[in-house]
Amino acid sequence: MALQEHVLLDADNGIHAEDFAAEGPPRVTARRLRGGKSEGIDVVTVDNGRLRVDVLPTRGMGLWRAEIDGHPVGWDSPVRRPVNPAFVEQTSRSGLGWLEGFNELLCRCGLAWNGPPCDDNGWPLTLHGRVANTPAHRVSLTVDDATGETTLTGHVEETGLFGPALLLESSLVTRPGSNRIEVRDVVTNLSDQAGEVELLYHTNLGQPFLEDGGRFHVAAKTVVPRDDRAAEGIESWTTYGPPEPGFAEQAYFVEPAPDADGRATALLHNAAADLGVAVDFKLDTLPFLTLWKCTGGLADGYVTGIEPGSGLPNTRSFERERGRVVTLGPRESRHFSVGFTALTNGSEVQQVLDLVTTTSAEVDTTVHPVPHPDFCVV
Amino acid sequence: MALQEHVLLDADNGIHAEDFAAEGPPRVTARRLRGGKSEGIDVVTVDNGRLRVDVLPTRGMGLWRAEIDGHPVGWDSPVRRPVNPAFVEQTSRSGLGWLEGFNELLCRCGLAWNGPPCDDNGWPLTLHGRVANTPAHRVSLTVDDATGETTLTGHVEETGLFGPALLLESSLVTRPGSNRIEVRDVVTNLSDQAGEVELLYHTNLGQPFLEDGGRFHVAAKTVVPRDDRAAEGIESWTTYGPPEPGFAEQAYFVEPAPDADGRATALLHNAAADLGVAVDFKLDTLPFLTLWKCTGGLADGYVTGIEPGSGLPNTRSFERERGRVVTLGPRESRHFSVGFTALTNGSEVQQVLDLVTTTSAEVDTTVHPVPHPDFCVV
Amino acid sequence: MALQEHVLLDADNGIHAEDFAAEGPPRVTARRLRGGKSEGIDVVTVDNGRLRVDVLPTRGMGLWRAEIDGHPVGWDSPVRRPVNPAFVEQTSRSGLGWLEGFNELLCRCGLAWNGPPCDDNGWPLTLHGRVANTPAHRVSLTVDDATGETTLTGHVEETGLFGPALLLESSLVTRPGSNRIEVRDVVTNLSDQAGEVELLYHTNLGQPFLEDGGRFHVAAKTVVPRDDRAAEGIESWTTYGPPEPGFAEQAYFVEPAPDADGRATALLHNAAADLGVAVDFKLDTLPFLTLWKCTGGLADGYVTGIEPGSGLPNTRSFERERGRVVTLGPRESRHFSVGFTALTNGSEVQQVLDLVTTTSAEVDTTVHPVPHPDFCVV
Repeated sequence: MALQEHVLLDADNGIHAEDFAAEGPPRVTARRLRGGKSEGIDVVTVDNGRLRVDVLPTRGMGLWRAEIDGHPVGWDSPVRRPVNPAFVEQTSRSGLGWLEGFNELLCRCGLAWNGPPCDDNGWPLTLHGRVANTPAHRVSLTVDDATGETTLTGHVEETGLFGPALLLESSLVTRPGSNRIEVRDVVTNLSDQAGEVELLYHTNLGQPFLEDGGRFHVAAKTVVPRDDRAAEGIESWTTYGPPEPGFAEQAYFVEPAPDADGRATALLHNAAADLGVAVDFKLDTLPFLTLWKCTGGLADGYVTGIEPGSGLPNTRSFERERGRVVTLGPRESRHFSVGFTALTNGSEVQQVLDLVTTTSAEVDTTVHPVPHPDFCVV
Repeated sequence: MALQEHVLLDADNGIHAEDFAAEGPPRVTARRLRGGKSEGIDVVTVDNGRLRVDVLPTRGMGLWRAEIDGHPVGWDSPVRRPVNPAFVEQTSRSGLGWLEGFNELLCRCGLAWNGPPCDDNGWPLTLHGRVANTPAHRVSLTVDDATGETTLTGHVEETGLFGPALLLESSLVTRPGSNRIEVRDVVTNLSDQAGEVELLYHTNLGQPFLEDGGRFHVAAKTVVPRDDRAAEGIESWTTYGPPEPGFAEQAYFVEPAPDADGRATALLHNAAADLGVAVDFKLDTLPFLTLWKCTGGLADGYVTGIEPGSGLPNTRSFERERGRVVTLGPRESRHFSVGFTALTNGSEVQQVLDLVTTTSAEVDTTVHPVPHPDFCVV
Repeated sequence: MALQEHVLLDADNGIHAEDFAAEGPPRVTARRLRGGKSEGIDVVTVDNGRLRVDVLPTRGMGLWRAEIDGHPVGWDSPVRRPVNPAFVEQTSRSGLGWLEGFNELLCRCGLAWNGPPCDDNGWPLTLHGRVANTPAHRVSLTVDDATGETTLTGHVEETGLFGPALLLESSLVTRPGSNRIEVRDVVTNLSDQAGEVELLYHTNLGQPFLEDGGRFHVAAKTVVPRDDRAAEGIESWTTYGPPEPGFAEQAYFVEPAPDADGRATALLHNAAADLGVAVDFKLDTLPFLTLWKCTGGLADGYVTGIEPGSGLPNTRSFERERGRVVTLGPRESRHFSVGFTALTNGSEVQQVLDLVTTTSAEVDTTVHPVPHPDFCVV
């Protein structure tokens, strides 16, 4: 196996390839956006011949958007372009400022916390943590000449004096012609003291994968509506309606059941079941899933979120009390694995559906009709 | 009519003409500032042969400053250079952080709100809204070959998930040799739901147009001092004194009277009435005017503001209660028109003064000696 | 004396030498960092042949780090690279956001205030003021051909409407082959009204100058522990232990005694007394010294701060009540002088130690065992 490494960005060594191109497949190109709040955003595009992904080093290695077989994969946020963190005041809007930069297909929430703004023992936490608004300081590309397997790796640090000191080493892996990407993340506590970690993969899909009559599938041990608003829709929590301006968001907390490999697979497909997206993840470190239904008007971000997490997106203090906050010792690391597969015909969708159905058949699912205090702030 | 369009900046299409020059007249050039808090600021200069204007796409298409016949038009803010919004924390200083980037000749306050920091039903609003600290994502130039009429258009979006979704399409229009520019703005609600808009044109002038003995003129139906401090000066609200270090600002709220075209014209001139600035605006969408007198020391920003607005710069909740907040339906737009004319001799000043006087003669003016609860937080 | 001036950066005149090199000695080079939160950081390196210093115009002319005779001079903050102020939200973490950009060898705290977050008569102050997060708008280099004396000068403005209007003109001076640099700062109140100034030079050292068994020396009139935590260590306030993960910081307030030139000299040396750093400062305008002991784990920033100040790093209101806030009249200036000498053998260390010892011998030192209300918030 011959590996070639290309360094696209390295803050420590003065490397910044503003315009980069590696012929593939996968073909990898880099460019820098100019203008508006996108000024200075680096975009790295990985195109394996079937699936093309735009990665944003400047926004914590988030996945801006993708395209497969001509179908856009992502959603139309009212925030219409990638936003440089320099223009995001996370403390604004009572700690909801994060919402003014949120438009990715996959946006990490973490590293030291996620969930709503709150005060955690005197430390004010803003919505969904800082990693999505932290630029990577190192980005490199590795290609396996034999298989064409291509790995884009980005390093992001979330540090401060007297604060967390966490390093994310994020890898995006794909192969020529594949409809799949894998995200392999390692989070390391750089500190000499123990540190807390919360991580959630906010994976967001709109049209054409999300549509009226579309469905969601996952093998679940437990399903709980987050709040009274979600409880209103518990009977139809796996189905989607049309865009509905003013629709108030609903979220469902899920404990997925493992398949034979210890992974869970969540599937969204359209009404005809000939377009779909599967999100699979390793349950040992991502034991929870949040399903977010935010099916407002098309202009307001008709979207659903499939969100594997180390815990649930409640306040960190609430999660800590329930033992769902990760604690890493000095220099300890934790691995997270999320796969993302785009499905563009009925056969591909059916194959994943069969997998989910098989696992589901072996599980007793408890669906709570109302919020439950083990999972929800009630 | 043959129109040529030049795109100077387009975040969506990778266009950024860092150094641009279109020979005129009007001559249009673009450059990028470097260093200090001005780092990354784009300046587009429109020079029609008589009047030269520096426009700041990076600060929401504000007009930094102008020059006519050798006279500087603008003011000397203690903030001495254009400030990149990346360096402005609007939430700082208890929501007054906006003041650390404020130095323009014409600075828009809006789009979703203006006025002082406040809590509006749980949403904390910072001073004067966000548009002045939002970079334009598209800037283009159109020249009419026949007339030389030159239009500089910039697009600015103020959006966030669960928040306002507003688009400003701002055009600055001038002609060769003219002493006049027109600002033609269109604000569109991009959302599928109704949205609120407040817009105020904070037009600011210092020396030599403002000076001891200078005067302000407008045909007014109503004049109200904003607060007790303004009431102290109600007898002399249209005249100016010299720079006075420590002078506490005064603001007067005005309901202007329309001329035959439905416009109002406000005039500031110097003591000799041979230098002046006229600000005219269409009353259908800008029915109010705020006159700001902030005649402190020269180093502290000796300045007066002539501020046409969709409402008054009170808290949004106060304005909403009085019906002065604009509500736009989904995809609805509103047009705003402001003209700016610089006058450099007695004849030019007199011509505008005659126009104001003619309109004034047909109006009964009510001057309230103290704040009135229809207009002021008392 | 023939002086050559090179302008490296001038926001007003469109000068930005992104890659600059002046052959010396001293050799002066400039470069711009790319990637991560260091994006856009300008670094100017002054290398006099023995001592090399990296200066950060983008962070208020702070001294990032130095190197002498192969020894690194500075500390290993958990914030591992210079942070562009655009990425620092100073209001975050309840006003402690400054900590997320703090990693310099010499970081100024000021200009209008320093000390902990607090509300000062309705104005919310964030930790240690704004100057370290304000980019210089002008940087120039002057070389004396005769002596090789090289002066790097940066101008930083801290202004806002209705706010302070302060200008820092900072000069870093060194000579070929010297182990010493001098910082000569002038702070000017640009306003037509009186303005307050607080300035503290947060000079920070880690390994190898700081180590277990290392010592601190200063001729002191008074020594006071800042709080109960510091009082615990008052018996050993001049000695250092090894890195101790979780060590809670201790600070000691010192009134130094003047030497014959009206200066004070503070000395840190390692256990063997063959490596040291001397910080000397002019007491007329920097009459106080804070010693900060923050000897946590190596990964968490094992560090000590030797901090000459115009006052003490308490809240500004507390300092004002005790007469330790500087008030400058309109256009009034104050000069500050700090010298920094790195010592790399026993003889150099001993020479400074002798100087401190000589001054100490003539002083009666009062060491308060517990916080004293003249100096500390008790």
